[in-house]
Amino acid sequence: MKHAIEDIIYAQNLFDRFYGIGASENGGVTRLGYMAEEDQMHETLLAIGREEGYSGYHDEVGNTYVCFHDDHQPYTLIGSHLDSVIDGGRYDGVAGVIAGLLILHWAKEDLLDNNIHVSAFRCEESSNFGRCTIGSGLITKEVYKHDISDLTAKNGKTLKEIFDERGYDLNPVCISNVKTYLELHIEQGKVLEEYQTRVGIVTTIAGPRRFQIHIHGSAEHSGATPMDMRHDALSAAAEVILEIESIGRDEAMYQSVATVGTLDIRPNALNVIPGEVVLGVDMRGIDESSLDRMEMRLKNSLKSVCHKRGLTYFREKTSSIPPISMSDELISKLSLSAKQLGISHRLMPSGAGHDAMSFAHLCDTGMVFIPCDKGISHNKQEYTSIESILDGARVMYEYMKGANTYDFD
Amino acid sequence: MKHAIEDIIYAQNLFDRFYGIGASENGGVTRLGYMAEEDQMHETLLAIGREEGYSGYHDEVGNTYVCFHDDHQPYTLIGSHLDSVIDGGRYDGVAGVIAGLLILHWAKEDLLDNNIHVSAFRCEESSNFGRCTIGSGLITKEVYKHDISDLTAKNGKTLKEIFDERGYDLNPVCISNVKTYLELHIEQGKVLEEYQTRVGIVTTIAGPRRFQIHIHGSAEHSGATPMDMRHDALSAAAEVILEIESIGRDEAMYQSVATVGTLDIRPNALNVIPGEVVLGVDMRGIDESSLDRMEMRLKNSLKSVCHKRGLTYFREKTSSIPPISMSDELISKLSLSAKQLGISHRLMPSGAGHDAMSFAHLCDTGMVFIPCDKGISHNKQEYTSIESILDGARVMYEYMKGANTYDFD
Repeated sequence: MKHAIEDIIYAQNLFDRFYGIGASENGGVTRLGYMAEEDQMHETLLAIGREEGYSGYHDEVGNTYVCFHDDHQPYTLIGSHLDSVIDGGRYDGVAGVIAGLLILHWAKEDLLDNNIHVSAFRCEESSNFGRCTIGSGLITKEVYKHDISDLTAKNGKTLKEIFDERGYDLNPVCISNVKTYLELHIEQGKVLEEYQTRVGIVTTIAGPRRFQIHIHGSAEHSGATPMDMRHDALSAAAEVILEIESIGRDEAMYQSVATVGTLDIRPNALNVIPGEVVLGVDMRGIDESSLDRMEMRLKNSLKSVCHKRGLTYFREKTSSIPPISMSDELISKLSLSAKQLGISHRLMPSGAGHDAMSFAHLCDTGMVFIPCDKGISHNKQEYTSIESILDGARVMYEYMKGANTYDFD
Repeated sequence: MKHAIEDIIYAQNLFDRFYGIGASENGGVTRLGYMAEEDQMHETLLAIGREEGYSGYHDEVGNTYVCFHDDHQPYTLIGSHLDSVIDGGRYDGVAGVIAGLLILHWAKEDLLDNNIHVSAFRCEESSNFGRCTIGSGLITKEVYKHDISDLTAKNGKTLKEIFDERGYDLNPVCISNVKTYLELHIEQGKVLEEYQTRVGIVTTIAGPRRFQIHIHGSAEHSGATPMDMRHDALSAAAEVILEIESIGRDEAMYQSVATVGTLDIRPNALNVIPGEVVLGVDMRGIDESSLDRMEMRLKNSLKSVCHKRGLTYFREKTSSIPPISMSDELISKLSLSAKQLGISHRLMPSGAGHDAMSFAHLCDTGMVFIPCDKGISHNKQEYTSIESILDGARVMYEYMKGANTYDFD
């Protein structure tokens, strides 16, 4: 299908409302979870809702919702997030919220008898607290209070302090009456682009396992300590980094990935051999046995590198989320909707985590991917077209229109 | 020789005066050059001088001197520094200033007819500005104004701003009338300890070559970017780090070393593949051809690693100081003094840079090393005994007593 010019203009206007918030000098945006820039994004969503004549509300953890009527009847929830990584792109999360607003808009025009809530969840990215999907996880009881209250934001405050200041509750009531959860998101990879496919229907969301690794050597004078008397924590870390890359490459056939995303070095002085290095490791996959192998190899590699170099280390698993399957029924019905609309689609896993993970145990959950330019995400160069957002939103809306009439087997 | 109990007590008291300044929670001291803690160290030196009845003065760049009479006659300068690295030790630099104060004390007692100035130079460590021997380099014209005014301290201020605030001059007159420069310093290595030798007489000071390397990759989503589509700047940096270690090991036979002491990574977030890494590299040696080979291998390795991975890089040489020889006459005379005192000695190069480098082109320059525990330096565990400081100071004093009487060939 081709999109109406009115839809393109409407969607572009929605996108423009969010554009400048948290813009950084480098051209990207920084809208960290539970910080002022994310607040502005949520206020903008509420303002759009007010202008359209919708109801709007926040829940106990600061997530924002807009809907026709807040009448507590079973409803379809269409959600995503409005936070970003540091110097991130403008489509990750925002595209999904815009898709929800488009569907509300179409449903209003079509007088569709469907109870729809559009939600923006807080702090989906792990960039601020080292933990993802906090807003959606709290209200679905996927994240528990004792797990996360001590997590510390980049500004040094704990999540508990921030919640107390804002009057939020780290132990909110579980969200209820959600019949179906749907989410549109940019792919953040290159598969759709390479196959020239307009939408992806997500089958499984990869489970991230995360580790913090401390390597302890000896901080000695860089000029006066002979090479054979050193205990250089950074050289050891370099071996571990390359081994993690190699582990990821070896497991790539199972669609697994492994990344060292953070590294801190002490004392970080030109004339001192690094005495301590802290690495943040992120492993993801849709195959539990592949994840198990990766974790075991990381463990063995760390042990052997530090043993060989006479160093000590401490490894902590900071999170472990199993791969999560989407609803088989939704996978089929969303695929059928795409086919009926003449929008090319393919089934695919998601390498990235999403708020949809929080809902899969509560209700039927489905996700639609749209391509992004060169697969680039978490970067100022992130781009997807308004037409792609409309493609995905139309597939979801087509499903919703038929949700009560299809008889699928 | 054995030391008099009075000398041990006197030296210990001097050391205790400096002990608590800049003490950090971790047990070390942080006394960065041109910062408040270094100021306190210099004020303490002046206070000690006043109590002993010496004259004291600062020069145009904030270096501090104490002497019997500031009479502008040719004199022997005994110097070192009072700044430290971050979380550094209490002996690096301080031991040399204490040695100078001991020599002044003995000369006063012995009514020695020698004009002696004891100096503490500013900012010998490169930890604050990424540049070493700033105080001694400025007043010997080894460092020129246009080189360093834009260097930025850890607190974000430029050296020029700091000098302007303090009324210092980045272009001071060159120090004059220095006949001989002597410096005692802890070895910061393990050679003396391993050979159970009480003092080292330095032959050559290794020349540091320093580089800042920027590696640029692509900051993409760590979950959704397949391993074979990545441009991970940190993995490339890891290869370069291991190659630099290997270069150092291969050149160890020429007493060269190579270190990556600093590393900064952007965006440093768990869910983003590192897009940019900045490495600080320090290479040192006493053999220019070994240094040339190391620099060439670094250049080639960086080129091939980045080429292989499809990354870009920028390499900047931030400093290059050739190896500097000490005065042959002083090497011989200090050795003879040690022998006459019955203090075991050996000739050795210095892997670390010292203020003595700034004086070698101006006057006869010599250095005496004393052992430090396990060779550890730039670390809170740094330790040397008061007896070792007395050993080194006695060797220097013995030379000074005979300086006008020896007829050496």
